Amino acid sequence: MQIGILGSGVTAQTIGSRLVQLGHEVMLGSRDEANPPAVTWANDAGQHALYGTFMNAAAFGEIVFNCTLGSASLDALTQAGAENLQGKILIDTANPLDRSTDVWTLTICNTDSLGEQIQRAFPETKVVKTLNTVNANVMVDPAKLLEKTDVFMSGNDIEAKATVKAILRDWFGWKSVIDLGNITTARSVEMYVLLWHSLRNAISSQRFNIKVVTS
Amino acid sequence: MQIGILGSGVTAQTIGSRLVQLGHEVMLGSRDEANPPAVTWANDAGQHALYGTFMNAAAFGEIVFNCTLGSASLDALTQAGAENLQGKILIDTANPLDRSTDVWTLTICNTDSLGEQIQRAFPETKVVKTLNTVNANVMVDPAKLLEKTDVFMSGNDIEAKATVKAILRDWFGWKSVIDLGNITTARSVEMYVLLWHSLRNAISSQRFNIKVVTS
Repeated sequence: MQIGILGSGVTAQTIGSRLVQLGHEVMLGSRDEANPPAVTWANDAGQHALYGTFMNAAAFGEIVFNCTLGSASLDALTQAGAENLQGKILIDTANPLDRSTDVWTLTICNTDSLGEQIQRAFPETKVVKTLNTVNANVMVDPAKLLEKTDVFMSGNDIEAKATVKAILRDWFGWKSVIDLGNITTARSVEMYVLLWHSLRNAISSQRFNIKVVTS
Repeated sequence: MQIGILGSGVTAQTIGSRLVQLGHEVMLGSRDEANPPAVTWANDAGQHALYGTFMNAAAFGEIVFNCTLGSASLDALTQAGAENLQGKILIDTANPLDRSTDVWTLTICNTDSLGEQIQRAFPETKVVKTLNTVNANVMVDPAKLLEKTDVFMSGNDIEAKATVKAILRDWFGWKSVIDLGNITTARSVEMYVLLWHSLRNAISSQRFNIKVVTS
């Protein structure tokens, strides 16, 4: 499958490398056509690893991942172009974080979320928020954790969520995907990221996740 | 031990009953001296179960629990009186929730928390935020869940947190208590409650909690 990834940081590269390993053709999109980290990644990751602008990557992808920083996501998606995202599934992994102080804050929260803002700005794109609650390494290899944990999914389109659930299971190995409901539940998972940050500080590791335990 | 509990709702009664079972003397505090739910609870729970005003309960307790609604907590604590809380541990279980719409929101979040507001308003009280991430039944009986899960703790006073950790373990059975850090981390656990709410809707149960799984 052809997959577009918006972003060229650790998350974009980690997801991109996993998808290339699986035999997909992957294009990392950046603000500039030849973003140095994306070029280096493409050179290292083999012939199915490509790079281009946000617009190139969105047009290339049958499915598109948003792996930009939350603060840059709406701008990156605008550059990608609504016509290049129309009718497609957009897997949104970003968090609207301000990390400029020791105690992180969110730039959007409580009565709105980045996931909702993206869905409102691109009404003909099927936005599915997921994977934002774990570090990039855990995203693509949850089996590295000592026990099976949960990943969450928020979105308005039932069929798109079924496709994303299969992607999470078959490509990344997520055995438990909890559908939280429509895109307003993106607030829940974005706001959880502050607990993720407190936990990271408390346990001095980024390789962890949570498991929901019932009675 | 003499324990004061501010509040007369399900959380106050559930914690109160557990503490009476353990042999403690417990007073539930309310706005009015003879709040009907508190009177009924005290009549049912035996001779060590008492009721009174917020002020009576705070003065009575060697340790005080805040089990009021988040929206009413600061007012209740003001009525309790700083002089009756001075030097004491205040275990804050409340969440600043607005439940008036289907999608819950917080009345305080992101750059502040109820836990911090209480600590600022009562600087001579040792505020420890904990238990707010689970339903009342899970608070006092975490062993009912299928696996050991985690409860979190936020506060500025190291000794107070050590005492609260022992209380959580010995009185309620919490085998894993994660110290998140100072009271600013109350933001993390209060903001998590929106994910708790989404999970409650997704799994149609209030009897659950999360377990942190590392690699």
